Amino acid sequence: MQNPVTVIQSVRLDDENDTLVVLNQTVLPNETNFLELRELEDIWDAIYQLKVRGAPAIGIAAAYGAYLGAKKSIAETYEALFEDFKKVKDYLATSRPTAVNLFWALNRMENRFKQEAGKSVAEVKAALKEESEAIRAEDEKICEAIGEHALSLLEPGWGLLTHCNAGTIATAKYGTALAPIYLGQEKGYNFKVYADETRPLLQGARLTAWELQQAGVDVTLICDNMASIVMKEGKIQAVLVGCDRVAANGDSANKIGTSGVAILAKHYNIPFYVCAPLSTIDLECKTGDDIQIELRPSEEITSKWYEKPMAPEAVQTYNPAFDVTDHSLITGIVTENGIAYAPYTESLPKMFKS
Amino acid sequence: MQNPVTVIQSVRLDDENDTLVVLNQTVLPNETNFLELRELEDIWDAIYQLKVRGAPAIGIAAAYGAYLGAKKSIAETYEALFEDFKKVKDYLATSRPTAVNLFWALNRMENRFKQEAGKSVAEVKAALKEESEAIRAEDEKICEAIGEHALSLLEPGWGLLTHCNAGTIATAKYGTALAPIYLGQEKGYNFKVYADETRPLLQGARLTAWELQQAGVDVTLICDNMASIVMKEGKIQAVLVGCDRVAANGDSANKIGTSGVAILAKHYNIPFYVCAPLSTIDLECKTGDDIQIELRPSEEITSKWYEKPMAPEAVQTYNPAFDVTDHSLITGIVTENGIAYAPYTESLPKMFKS
Repeated sequence: MQNPVTVIQSVRLDDENDTLVVLNQTVLPNETNFLELRELEDIWDAIYQLKVRGAPAIGIAAAYGAYLGAKKSIAETYEALFEDFKKVKDYLATSRPTAVNLFWALNRMENRFKQEAGKSVAEVKAALKEESEAIRAEDEKICEAIGEHALSLLEPGWGLLTHCNAGTIATAKYGTALAPIYLGQEKGYNFKVYADETRPLLQGARLTAWELQQAGVDVTLICDNMASIVMKEGKIQAVLVGCDRVAANGDSANKIGTSGVAILAKHYNIPFYVCAPLSTIDLECKTGDDIQIELRPSEEITSKWYEKPMAPEAVQTYNPAFDVTDHSLITGIVTENGIAYAPYTESLPKMFKS
Repeated sequence: MQNPVTVIQSVRLDDENDTLVVLNQTVLPNETNFLELRELEDIWDAIYQLKVRGAPAIGIAAAYGAYLGAKKSIAETYEALFEDFKKVKDYLATSRPTAVNLFWALNRMENRFKQEAGKSVAEVKAALKEESEAIRAEDEKICEAIGEHALSLLEPGWGLLTHCNAGTIATAKYGTALAPIYLGQEKGYNFKVYADETRPLLQGARLTAWELQQAGVDVTLICDNMASIVMKEGKIQAVLVGCDRVAANGDSANKIGTSGVAILAKHYNIPFYVCAPLSTIDLECKTGDDIQIELRPSEEITSKWYEKPMAPEAVQTYNPAFDVTDHSLITGIVTENGIAYAPYTESLPKMFKS
């Protein structure tokens, strides 16, 4: 039995109108504002200004941008079109110089262009459209597969806790940690989801609570320091989080605070699952000790979002953006090819062979 | 070797000017504003508006208020003065109807009044002054004793983590959990203190970071969800927290998030100490299950302090003000009469007999 559920798509191609439609994530949750981007400069700006965020969503936006940029070209030969395409690609690549998915998507578009050598301009443009749609569709499939595998671990009516935003708006559709929640919602599982607000940038409050609410999921917002009491009170049967990078031994880097949630889950005997597309699993990285943690500015803690500063002037802060959850705290790592269990040094490589 | 340290006194009597001087805690950390209160209505208002906060500080302010109110009376007999005193007392008692320390202090002032039966008006007024000063001085002594006992558990140069505000501004002086930090500062211990910001009301950011900074303590502000990474990185050698109520078995209720910090401390093998004046230890209360947890309004999480709401409209929230830390997670409970260790059912009653 499937219930129709509104799962927000944050990046979409409107080919008829030569338009990229993106959800402006910077004004959430106060405004639901879909931007209709026709000029390349506007697409660049949307990525630069973090209006599009989430690694997969950025890659998809860039791929669509590269297609729309090439489509506009008045070049009449394959070679002339390639010149124009390269300009578009190089320009879009400058929008977010640290986003790995951005380059990955743009390079994939270029490779496709090269595969079409000798074809007509119209054929190449059609191929680029196909490739950008494939990038989007594959990401949706990955998320859906992660969602199906993770859903197999959950039971109807369960209380679930999540941290930060690993949701539909960061991906093509469904997200990673939130994918089983959407798929469960479609099947009438009636999960009760608790979203950590996720200080200092409040992705849980601004994004996760918002997108789950849009889909009609029963979501409750809590402060990060309330995770212990909701677990103690028996409200949580499983924890689901996303990740930025997983090491070969299963150590997983994710938004700051994730390791604390994992320790609480272990204390209360609650399973803790990391939802990880294979693209985030880095077998070259031996352990979490090899993962460098980005330190971010003080003002995110002391004054951002606030009417007035909420800490004394010139106070010292420590603001790491991520932490590493030890593999010993992780019940399972859910990929698009199945669920890896300890020992992860053995199970993770197998995921790539499925 | 003692270094002079500025430890803020948040409530002080200026008898010469018939004035109660209180630190206005509602405008911290942006303004350091000491209010000079001469009218009884202003004292009432300062308590009502939470300009004075912290159970001991409220009791002290009320005692001084009762004295200053009686001092103003033009009554010429003991009986007439008692009439006026009773009006003052009953009025002040309405300022914060749930604050146990408020009634305790006012009742103690009334008992002292009654002990002076038959004395002259001037003698009674002098006795009331003495009693109010005694209430303040005793609280300072309790805090200092807790500080000395707790300091015996710590070593110079240690990293310490605290949650919420159990500091000097909530008490006569020194606070409870922060008392060993101030005493250590005076002895040149060079502690490195990490203060959890303590969502949703930010007492750690607004109050703890501020008062430690004023005293020259090396304090670093972190978000609540960063406690795990600072412990993992070896930055913390002990955790010190205050409490609202301790049950006979050692279960301790304190600001929301405290139980999570205790679980992290246990995971990382870091000692976790609760600093508890005997007045907070309730041997009639068998376990933490008997402690009711206050639930507070949604807007504290979703919109308070913020320029714009930071969560979607009408989102569900869960906002418990306190949680209970299980006695099994507590390394020791530090009282003014010494340190209680497990089993607490045996050690806590002995504290009252010292």
